[in-house]
Amino acid sequence: MMPSDCSDSAGLSASAPGGVRAVTRCDVLGQAPFSEEPDRLFRPYLSAAYRATSTQIAGWMQAAGMQTRIDAAGNLIGRYEGLAPGAPALLIGSHIDSVRDAGRYDGMLGVLLGVELVAHYAAQGRRFPFALEVIGFGDEEGSRFPVSMLTSRAVAGLLREPPTGMQDAAGLSLQAALAGEGLALEQMPDAARRPDEILAYLEAHIEQGPVLEAENRAVGVVTAIAAQYRFRVHLQGVAGHAGTMPMTLRQDALAAAAEAILAIETIAQSGPPDLVATVGQLTVAPGVPNVVPGSVVFSIDVRAGEAAVRNAAAEEIRKALEALAARRKVTLDMSLQQDLPATPCDAALTDLLGEAARTVTGAEPRRMVSGAGHDAMVIAALAPVCMLFIRCEGGISHNPAEAVDPADVDQAFQVMTRFIEDFAGRCP
Amino acid sequence: MMPSDCSDSAGLSASAPGGVRAVTRCDVLGQAPFSEEPDRLFRPYLSAAYRATSTQIAGWMQAAGMQTRIDAAGNLIGRYEGLAPGAPALLIGSHIDSVRDAGRYDGMLGVLLGVELVAHYAAQGRRFPFALEVIGFGDEEGSRFPVSMLTSRAVAGLLREPPTGMQDAAGLSLQAALAGEGLALEQMPDAARRPDEILAYLEAHIEQGPVLEAENRAVGVVTAIAAQYRFRVHLQGVAGHAGTMPMTLRQDALAAAAEAILAIETIAQSGPPDLVATVGQLTVAPGVPNVVPGSVVFSIDVRAGEAAVRNAAAEEIRKALEALAARRKVTLDMSLQQDLPATPCDAALTDLLGEAARTVTGAEPRRMVSGAGHDAMVIAALAPVCMLFIRCEGGISHNPAEAVDPADVDQAFQVMTRFIEDFAGRCP
Repeated sequence: MMPSDCSDSAGLSASAPGGVRAVTRCDVLGQAPFSEEPDRLFRPYLSAAYRATSTQIAGWMQAAGMQTRIDAAGNLIGRYEGLAPGAPALLIGSHIDSVRDAGRYDGMLGVLLGVELVAHYAAQGRRFPFALEVIGFGDEEGSRFPVSMLTSRAVAGLLREPPTGMQDAAGLSLQAALAGEGLALEQMPDAARRPDEILAYLEAHIEQGPVLEAENRAVGVVTAIAAQYRFRVHLQGVAGHAGTMPMTLRQDALAAAAEAILAIETIAQSGPPDLVATVGQLTVAPGVPNVVPGSVVFSIDVRAGEAAVRNAAAEEIRKALEALAARRKVTLDMSLQQDLPATPCDAALTDLLGEAARTVTGAEPRRMVSGAGHDAMVIAALAPVCMLFIRCEGGISHNPAEAVDPADVDQAFQVMTRFIEDFAGRCP
Repeated sequence: MMPSDCSDSAGLSASAPGGVRAVTRCDVLGQAPFSEEPDRLFRPYLSAAYRATSTQIAGWMQAAGMQTRIDAAGNLIGRYEGLAPGAPALLIGSHIDSVRDAGRYDGMLGVLLGVELVAHYAAQGRRFPFALEVIGFGDEEGSRFPVSMLTSRAVAGLLREPPTGMQDAAGLSLQAALAGEGLALEQMPDAARRPDEILAYLEAHIEQGPVLEAENRAVGVVTAIAAQYRFRVHLQGVAGHAGTMPMTLRQDALAAAAEAILAIETIAQSGPPDLVATVGQLTVAPGVPNVVPGSVVFSIDVRAGEAAVRNAAAEEIRKALEALAARRKVTLDMSLQQDLPATPCDAALTDLLGEAARTVTGAEPRRMVSGAGHDAMVIAALAPVCMLFIRCEGGISHNPAEAVDPADVDQAFQVMTRFIEDFAGRCP
């Protein structure tokens, strides 16, 4: 899996299935010079590793028959013309940056599947009533500058002003990082595409969760990217001596929080499968073994495919917490910290993708909500979007143990070809 | 309450009830020069404030008719001879050191009630078949050196070797601190009393808990100092993405801990009133809002008047935690960190103290377990002990808001006189 050079000849057979080739190329890109660190994968936006990766993928795109360019935001774009030059495009892609100590498939797999799809049709000399464009977004992870998805926002036309005042951990400004690649901060919004240029967006991505594995499925069809609430909850009781405060007189903030955590779990479990609620952060004061806790602060993360489901769950949680706080004589302060709306995938495109999956896999496809964010949720502002999830081992992601079965990825490749061809069949 | 000088003439009437006088003197000792800090009370063992306090109380002891001395451990002892010189003593006392930012009554009230008791009998010229000794222990709180109750252990004969290698926060050794008071580390064990010198030990102390206040009682009789277990519990689940890990597939260590906390609470609530169990410390890993917790570590403190009750509760807790860990597919590691045995107060003395309380208050006295440790638990190795608890406001202690009602303290004073006289009546 680690060829001594990165050319197609090294370990890559032109006759191998497209999905298998995409996985092999992800593996090639999992090490230097495509990582900033020698022993683990880290590919931040506009780094030397990012430039090397972008250059390598551009070479593969060109070999597959595409014309390539870097847009004003540093995204890599390859274009395979349709039957008529200048036709609007079906955009296929994901992101090429990575978190620190990343896996090899998060984002990259969706980009390289796009390259393989074009290679597949170019080898047949087949063109469609639309162009195929493959895009590698630059900063989905937000692993260099303090925001994420800046470059997909630029493409979607959501970046009305150049983003100023941003620095990386080393103190280098976004402006300087862009200048190092021959790009200008003030021109970043020029990466915007016109809606009439982009017919639709298709993103394939590893699931980053355990559902497909648990159900023994290679792929799943994403119906929406979840709506998300984040709350901060403060329960204030009364601290007391662990030895002298009898159970009957306690106003124990941690016992109240424990009841809250179980109530939150029960409410989420009793909702639809895409409803999830998590208490991930919790601190106790004074936090010593011999003092009954006086104060507890914790987070609640609530997500669902539809805002209405999320909102109803959050309301039920609030009522449960108010009731237990009153019963336990502790005060409750529950404040909303973050409210991200749901992004429904386009219903018609998702049905088309589902039909393609049914044809390829021979089974009714799993329709699922993405609890994690993706570039698709941003591009939805520009064009109708759809997403295909690919099973990953143990649901593990953002970790070097991230793994996919190449056979699953080739199923995804088959589903995507079927989708493109069915999509072409519906063109006027 | 804050006279400009500290003589008896300042705010203290010789005809005031003994309990009221004791409270007033605690208030006098609540500030400089009896505290190391100008704005809050801090009186560590062998500090300048400790010396000033000891000197002041010795003056009051002498005025009450006692001979005073500092023993080899730095404890202050006043002796009021009995009918025959050199008779064995009824020892009365508590501690004169304090925690940082302390209240004025914790410990000190028991010492100054002893002084008032002697003053009361000396004023009548009344002597008993035993001497009365009043002791102010030096380091009950352990607020200067890393152990507590070193000086009562010396008196009880439990200090077989001089305690070497101990330093305070400033790096000053115990040896140097003792030398500053003209004492020698190697002679510290010489503070030991012979069992035939001490007939019994009586300690009055604020309750440091809310039970007496909740039941509207001035005083309570302590039957035992609680047995204590401390456990460390580690629950290991599987961390996961808060957005992509469905509820049904989670192995959430914090949800498991929440269930454990409620089980611990329920078990303690269903036991006898003196059984208490507390989860005071809890840490979550990774501890971020968007990750399902993979690991939680927490403390359990379990106390009861009898070791058997504590042990049974701990066993029930262990079984409940094993059951929920298995059901939730998380691993449990529960390890014993600390095991302090129970110290029963002497049954006959406690009955005598209870009878005195019944006579004075006109009601069946509250018999209660002390969940906190006291010098009495150490002196029990030397002589039979009994303890009287005095109501404190809101159960608050180790805090400048510590407060007592002087009328309550005078009830305690009455109970103690009755106890001494009944005790004398039983002498052969």
